Amino acid sequence: MGITLELAQTAIQAAHEKALEMGVKMNIAVVDAGANLVAFVRMDDAWLGSLDISIKKAKTARFFDMPTGVIGSLSQPGGSLYNIEHSNGGLITFPGGIPIKDGSGKVIGAIGVSGHGVEDDHIVAEAGVSAVEGK
Amino acid sequence: MGITLELAQTAIQAAHEKALEMGVKMNIAVVDAGANLVAFVRMDDAWLGSLDISIKKAKTARFFDMPTGVIGSLSQPGGSLYNIEHSNGGLITFPGGIPIKDGSGKVIGAIGVSGHGVEDDHIVAEAGVSAVEGK
Amino acid sequence: MGITLELAQTAIQAAHEKALEMGVKMNIAVVDAGANLVAFVRMDDAWLGSLDISIKKAKTARFFDMPTGVIGSLSQPGGSLYNIEHSNGGLITFPGGIPIKDGSGKVIGAIGVSGHGVEDDHIVAEAGVSAVEGK
Amino acid sequence: MGITLELAQTAIQAAHEKALEMGVKMNIAVVDAGANLVAFVRMDDAWLGSLDISIKKAKTARFFDMPTGVIGSLSQPGGSLYNIEHSNGGLITFPGGIPIKDGSGKVIGAIGVSGHGVEDDHIVAEAGVSAVEGK
Repeated sequence: MGITLELAQTAIQAAHEKALEMGVKMNIAVVDAGANLVAFVRMDDAWLGSLDISIKKAKTARFFDMPTGVIGSLSQPGGSLYNIEHSNGGLITFPGGIPIKDGSGKVIGAIGVSGHGVEDDHIVAEAGVSAVEGK
Repeated sequence: MGITLELAQTAIQAAHEKALEMGVKMNIAVVDAGANLVAFVRMDDAWLGSLDISIKKAKTARFFDMPTGVIGSLSQPGGSLYNIEHSNGGLITFPGGIPIKDGSGKVIGAIGVSGHGVEDDHIVAEAGVSAVEGK
Repeated sequence: MGITLELAQTAIQAAHEKALEMGVKMNIAVVDAGANLVAFVRMDDAWLGSLDISIKKAKTARFFDMPTGVIGSLSQPGGSLYNIEHSNGGLITFPGGIPIKDGSGKVIGAIGVSGHGVEDDHIVAEAGVSAVEGK
Repeated sequence: MGITLELAQTAIQAAHEKALEMGVKMNIAVVDAGANLVAFVRMDDAWLGSLDISIKKAKTARFFDMPTGVIGSLSQPGGSLYNIEHSNGGLITFPGGIPIKDGSGKVIGAIGVSGHGVEDDHIVAEAGVSAVEGK
């Protein structure tokens, strides 16, 4: 089923440390290859509504094996995937979700981060991915 | 309720073969005249998020008896069916869903395909329709 | 993610043939190790309400890696898992769902069958499992 | 909103270590005073269906400020809370969910554990509570 709990916790810890360093309060979720939750943390006083968003970002990134922001660029009015967000019980397609690959390039899960501006969400998610990718 | 399992499986097999020929990995669903699932296949390593999308495309095509992309052209901001995707537990209105008719032109079901660019999804869906329409 | 489409179709075909032999009309679903649908067929004139039940049986069998009827024996009033059916968006815990294992005994997916008495559902599911288990 | 992430992670780590010691594979969730998820881990190869159950147990324990098993004793046929599981998007009322209190006895959150027999689930949950209660 892809990512282990140990790797998921390593990703979350790295993302958490990045968020602390940036002074932002985040919800951080990691799902496995089946898009099912493996580990999650919500930092104190992080936006409550970002709880569900972080999990949906992680799921969305695994559902289509690409960063969530890429999907969002295609789901705009007039875009080829307009309103794809209505599928799968609700997708989140702005930045902050990124697939996690193993050393061979196979997707083993994904991380989703939500709690601040979407650029910051993406930076924190990247910190999580960097800590584990290829391990 | 329209399409038989035998015809649905013929449509799915033709679509599956077309996808293999094109080198794309698809989720393929067929619903009957009641918009209920009759047959489904997910090709190995096809996008997981496309499972639900393929079924929603088939249902959407039967709900309104037209290709999903046509509905999408009407559901844009300012369009007459703006945000129709909120109905029926979630519609998908970009290409890849096509109604299936019998020899008399009566709609007996629909096919929905998802897994690649929406033009490819539509081509694969058409291969499925062509294999059974009028039979 | 476990079971391939080829194996899933082999299981469904064997179950379908068993159902024809028994003269019963079934919905037959196979999910992978992530409990996501891989293949599905609904026989002509099979109960429409059994569509969802067959998928939920397959998911339930994979969720807990045991036949659905075993869970049902524990979820009765007074039982240790009373009303477990309220989890996971709805479980079905009467017979007809069975995990599918590979040659090493690892669960790679599950089959769910619904459409007749639950004993018949279970027999048809077993025919599907027997056709692929250990392959 | 009650429990901090730090305390929630302490509870989860203690529960995780207890599960390892007992040789059982668990899903472990902690919610805050608002019954919203604060932290979660799923041990490798733990039952997939227990993911949702562990979260629902934690929520149920905080919803009513009592161990889930106590509610289950009242929700049986003929009991005063018969079928209370239908509320709140689905409750789980068998053992494995326990409220967490601060030093003054005020409930600050709850832990939910699922993955094995319900007695084991409860023991692992208690290990989590003991590690933080009154801190």
